Amino acid sequence: MKKFMNTAASLVAESLQGFVAAHEQTVMFAPERKFVLRRNPSFGKVALISGGGAGHEPLHVGFVGQGMLDAACTGHIFTSPTPDQIIAAIELTDTGAGCLLIVKNYDGDVMNFEMAAEAVAQTHRIKTIIVSDDVAAYGVGRSSGRRGVAGTLIVEKILGAAAEAGTDLAQLKALGEHLGERVRTMGVALSGVIVPDTARPTFLLEADEMEVGVGIHGEPGIGREKMASANAIAALLCDRVLADIGARDANEPALLFLNGFGGTPTSELYLVYNAARRLFEAAGFTIARSLVGTYVTSLDMAGLSITLARLDEAMLSLWDAPVATPALRWS
Amino acid sequence: MKKFMNTAASLVAESLQGFVAAHEQTVMFAPERKFVLRRNPSFGKVALISGGGAGHEPLHVGFVGQGMLDAACTGHIFTSPTPDQIIAAIELTDTGAGCLLIVKNYDGDVMNFEMAAEAVAQTHRIKTIIVSDDVAAYGVGRSSGRRGVAGTLIVEKILGAAAEAGTDLAQLKALGEHLGERVRTMGVALSGVIVPDTARPTFLLEADEMEVGVGIHGEPGIGREKMASANAIAALLCDRVLADIGARDANEPALLFLNGFGGTPTSELYLVYNAARRLFEAAGFTIARSLVGTYVTSLDMAGLSITLARLDEAMLSLWDAPVATPALRWS
Repeated sequence: MKKFMNTAASLVAESLQGFVAAHEQTVMFAPERKFVLRRNPSFGKVALISGGGAGHEPLHVGFVGQGMLDAACTGHIFTSPTPDQIIAAIELTDTGAGCLLIVKNYDGDVMNFEMAAEAVAQTHRIKTIIVSDDVAAYGVGRSSGRRGVAGTLIVEKILGAAAEAGTDLAQLKALGEHLGERVRTMGVALSGVIVPDTARPTFLLEADEMEVGVGIHGEPGIGREKMASANAIAALLCDRVLADIGARDANEPALLFLNGFGGTPTSELYLVYNAARRLFEAAGFTIARSLVGTYVTSLDMAGLSITLARLDEAMLSLWDAPVATPALRWS
Repeated sequence: MKKFMNTAASLVAESLQGFVAAHEQTVMFAPERKFVLRRNPSFGKVALISGGGAGHEPLHVGFVGQGMLDAACTGHIFTSPTPDQIIAAIELTDTGAGCLLIVKNYDGDVMNFEMAAEAVAQTHRIKTIIVSDDVAAYGVGRSSGRRGVAGTLIVEKILGAAAEAGTDLAQLKALGEHLGERVRTMGVALSGVIVPDTARPTFLLEADEMEVGVGIHGEPGIGREKMASANAIAALLCDRVLADIGARDANEPALLFLNGFGGTPTSELYLVYNAARRLFEAAGFTIARSLVGTYVTSLDMAGLSITLARLDEAMLSLWDAPVATPALRWS
């Protein structure tokens, strides 16, 4: 295991410290470094809070800032943040309009965000969106139902823009649930990952194998297959996404998000984007928006996921709204 | 070799096609796909043209757009673009104020950009900036003098902003040379890379080794050492950069750029950024600006480089000026 680190115990804290220092115009630590906080909050709007295990950077801390999250709570690698962290984030960011918690569907995350929400239920209005965009069924019992993976970025961006525009808590919850139905993701890995604490790979692949249907915690996927061409891999993933994306109109606008897992270079992501775009267009979608990059990761895993999001006009305009976070920024 | 590709011969073209499709608001192909062009040019300003081999993405094509490059010419992997491509870029982007060519210091690149400049010398005013920021001496004869590596991004950003503001060709050349003296980079690799055409790794490291002083073409560095802690690696690189960065005032402002080579996750880059920042601050610099990410790559190499740039007030303000490219974007 070769990683740029000092000790496994200090890795997350040191990386977060570097992150906050590098983006000190945009984000800051909350007291006791319990979470990362937006530096210039918009008062009176619903506060958006997310979080999860470390190892997925830039998710979630990279999305704290104007037009997206107000706070992100980070646990240890692939480990949920504690209710204590989440409660502190709610208490600091709720300026009266309530808090929306955006949670990836993993048992630990769901449980800890729920415990936090219950603990402050008397003093804060809280609603929760559970993201579960992964089309790969996952039957090992670690998580209930579909996992929340790369599509979480899209949910955070669109709800963040809506909150910034003054949408109230109940409307945000409804928008998030409606959006959740329209975002689907499928991933593939060319390597397992080594979690620094254990120093063991989560799974081993032969030189001619790939793992299909992986999530973002280094866990095995739904099947091991022979390594294939980029076009064949794109077809495999896109077919599964299309089978699950629901009814659609002719030329329905969609966002295509090609996400790297940490160890795959941008040039390869663009190559697969090119293949995926043609497949979705052939299936009747208009690729109205695109995002290609390494945003929702699984340490240094070689691999990628393909996300398709059916976005209506209102959602497209929320996607386009200005955002100023460390990892996503446009005006 | 596991890569997301179809064939080695079509890899660069397919990746570029995906890139242009994903960023169609910002960039477009020139006729015959000879280079990537800014979609909404500013007329009357000096045109900035760069380029080099593929395999360094997002450099250079990711930096085409408002406030940075007008055109980028891409060769095959680690292979210079042809004079033909560069001539076409000059002819299409020169709107009367001349062209500035920004070239990384590698023999092939320097030669082909020179040939292009000579070919159009009668009809276009051309000046060239050779970037050579790598402090690792490189004596194998592949290149004359120091290599141009990650610091190229800084040169392209600052000269791009100056050109956008109407700086003339002679002043841009002077600014680029002055800036070049103030930018220094040193890199380290944890793995070699496999160039798809050869399907062989460029060098092999043991599980406990790292290659110090590498460039961005998979070539070996200046020494092989035992793998070390992130703090020790940061010290090794920063010491070399500091030894070479030139005279400085107390608390002189600098930009610290922590660049990933393609296979290193963002979380590790931030961790090393954290260590490097402390070292440079201890050496008397004020880290006034920061950039952390995977911008100047060597295929999927695991590794990173540390760049320090001493920026005066005018350069800081050019760094801060709006930029709207696929890979670098702020307002």
